[in-house]
Amino acid sequence: MIYLDQAATSYPKPTEVSEAICASLLQAGNSGRGGHHLSLEASRLVFDARWEIAEFLGAEDASCIVFTANATESLNLALFGLLNPGDHVITTELEHNSVLRPLYNLEDRGVEVTILPADRQGCIDVSRESLTNHLRANTRALVCTHASNVTGNMVDIASVGEFCKEHNLIFIVDAAQTAGYYSYDLKNTPVDILCFTGHKSLWGPQGIGGIYVKPGVVVRPLKVGGSGIQTFSRTHPGQMPEALEAGTLNIPGIAGLLAGIRYLRSLGLDKVRHVEGELCRYFYRGVSKLVGVEVYGDFRAPLRCPIVSLNVLALPSNLVSQRLADDYSIYTRSGGHCAPLMHRALGTDAMGAVRFSFSHKNSREELDTALRALAEISGDLL
Amino acid sequence: MIYLDQAATSYPKPTEVSEAICASLLQAGNSGRGGHHLSLEASRLVFDARWEIAEFLGAEDASCIVFTANATESLNLALFGLLNPGDHVITTELEHNSVLRPLYNLEDRGVEVTILPADRQGCIDVSRESLTNHLRANTRALVCTHASNVTGNMVDIASVGEFCKEHNLIFIVDAAQTAGYYSYDLKNTPVDILCFTGHKSLWGPQGIGGIYVKPGVVVRPLKVGGSGIQTFSRTHPGQMPEALEAGTLNIPGIAGLLAGIRYLRSLGLDKVRHVEGELCRYFYRGVSKLVGVEVYGDFRAPLRCPIVSLNVLALPSNLVSQRLADDYSIYTRSGGHCAPLMHRALGTDAMGAVRFSFSHKNSREELDTALRALAEISGDLL
Repeated sequence: MIYLDQAATSYPKPTEVSEAICASLLQAGNSGRGGHHLSLEASRLVFDARWEIAEFLGAEDASCIVFTANATESLNLALFGLLNPGDHVITTELEHNSVLRPLYNLEDRGVEVTILPADRQGCIDVSRESLTNHLRANTRALVCTHASNVTGNMVDIASVGEFCKEHNLIFIVDAAQTAGYYSYDLKNTPVDILCFTGHKSLWGPQGIGGIYVKPGVVVRPLKVGGSGIQTFSRTHPGQMPEALEAGTLNIPGIAGLLAGIRYLRSLGLDKVRHVEGELCRYFYRGVSKLVGVEVYGDFRAPLRCPIVSLNVLALPSNLVSQRLADDYSIYTRSGGHCAPLMHRALGTDAMGAVRFSFSHKNSREELDTALRALAEISGDLL
Repeated sequence: MIYLDQAATSYPKPTEVSEAICASLLQAGNSGRGGHHLSLEASRLVFDARWEIAEFLGAEDASCIVFTANATESLNLALFGLLNPGDHVITTELEHNSVLRPLYNLEDRGVEVTILPADRQGCIDVSRESLTNHLRANTRALVCTHASNVTGNMVDIASVGEFCKEHNLIFIVDAAQTAGYYSYDLKNTPVDILCFTGHKSLWGPQGIGGIYVKPGVVVRPLKVGGSGIQTFSRTHPGQMPEALEAGTLNIPGIAGLLAGIRYLRSLGLDKVRHVEGELCRYFYRGVSKLVGVEVYGDFRAPLRCPIVSLNVLALPSNLVSQRLADDYSIYTRSGGHCAPLMHRALGTDAMGAVRFSFSHKNSREELDTALRALAEISGDLL
């Protein structure tokens, strides 16, 4: 098996992750729900993970980190928890449905939404001039992905963040593809909210994610209920991070995510990014030479995630993906990648695209096999 | 260690649960997010779990079962997704903050809330007469726990459900303490919504739960976003169960929950309930003989969960729990158990209570040790 679907979920997970999950099942009870050893062990684990994620992302402190089920929950929490009828929000055509659908929902409730268009390469103009043109008196927030999950092209969040800061906009970043790839330094970056998932580049299990909330930014909770503290208060606790967490936490997931981050840090994030960037460029150079293969995105851009999406002649992407899987045991992801506006911008809304995504666990040999397979599939039809 | 905090989270988890989680990390990708083997394996696992939970609960079919993070999320989803300003909802003083806090929140938005009072034994009057007295023209739903997490006393959901059906009320049941203990036959019971968690009597890991929605009941989603299907639709898919799930599912959690349920079914639910009931009665008989120990709840009631909450003289419950843990390695749960109105009804809002909760993995020998410990602690103060 050659797994080139790392942007859907990273694979294979490090053995440390499985071990940490099993250990948590043996050693940890329910955090914040008792004073005995097992409960305290769970609380300690949660605190350690929060602290280490905060450190990894360069956050101000552990209380800025809230655990969620996935990036989708984080984005729903941020968008529904910050925007009110009458507000205007700016977003982009790069976005995943986890941003677009909450925004469409909010639009129905009186939130105004502006969507910055992507060009045929899937790039958006986030220059000061462009952003200024879209400002309104009631513009309250800007939400965008840090990297397209279709093309891998990244958005310069430092410059967009500066613009937001100048105009007093809340800046919400979807880091589903970038947490565990990009070196964040959040306390020195004008990002108010960062939404991430644990099961992609952070190497944790599916089902655990998080949200960073800059100190001072107040988000309404999506869920309220038991918190293990302030039982006799009518309202859910207001202090972070408890304010945005309700019910029993995903202790095994948190243990697995912590192990994933420790694994990543032991390798060195810069080194991992370098290896993944090299693999991505190698594959891109290879596919660029293939007649009948069209690649999407801007590969001259300096900021990129290790993703190459392409189509072979006029073949529907799902047929190509299926053939790669069936005939070559090469696993990719076809279709629309939950990014409908991006595919419309690329002109691929009918056929989708075949997405190859890489991690440092992949090898050049695997990519050579994939390149030969693509040559054969495209050659068949010449 | 003697673990008598099973109502907080069951412990120790069966080895099958750890094994299933590790296997899912090795064998499963991201469900519904690709056509290759790993993704399909994840989809199959999710379907199997949905199907088997539906069968276990006696639900109509697998599409009635939606995965959530915990019972709290399920309850928030149900309450925020069903109630509108102007509606009236009936609930009880038995409820956990996962019911009360969403309702207080909804009250601020114009939902009318009636809370049925509990007596000094923590029991509520759910007779036809009592319920009829609280009906209003705008009464839309009744939400109640199936069993108090403080006293263990259960509510007769069949009769309450019949009343709801007659008066066209949506009946929402909090099964946090009962799923995996009570034998549900949902397709033949007038329950519209059942909210459950995986990590208690179902023996799964923390971080996975679910909600049963009777066919025909339409709940607004709490989160929208990527669903792996209908990418080009502006709205989140409307069909169940996808309608109420967004983002990457907790595949390891679902695998663990499925293993937990299979473990439970292999033992036989009736047998497990019998063993747990026997242990609970044994412990109750023991503590009833201790001078200076006050036990809460109605132990003559036929329907009970294996929970015994008590206080020792006038000692704050946390001190007793701490002493049990420190001096005897007996793990219990003290305080308010996120059930503030119940503790007020019992007169224990100041001191809380020490909760002992049992599973079939506990033994009479363990309970004897706990009884001796309580005798010593209460004797010290005589």
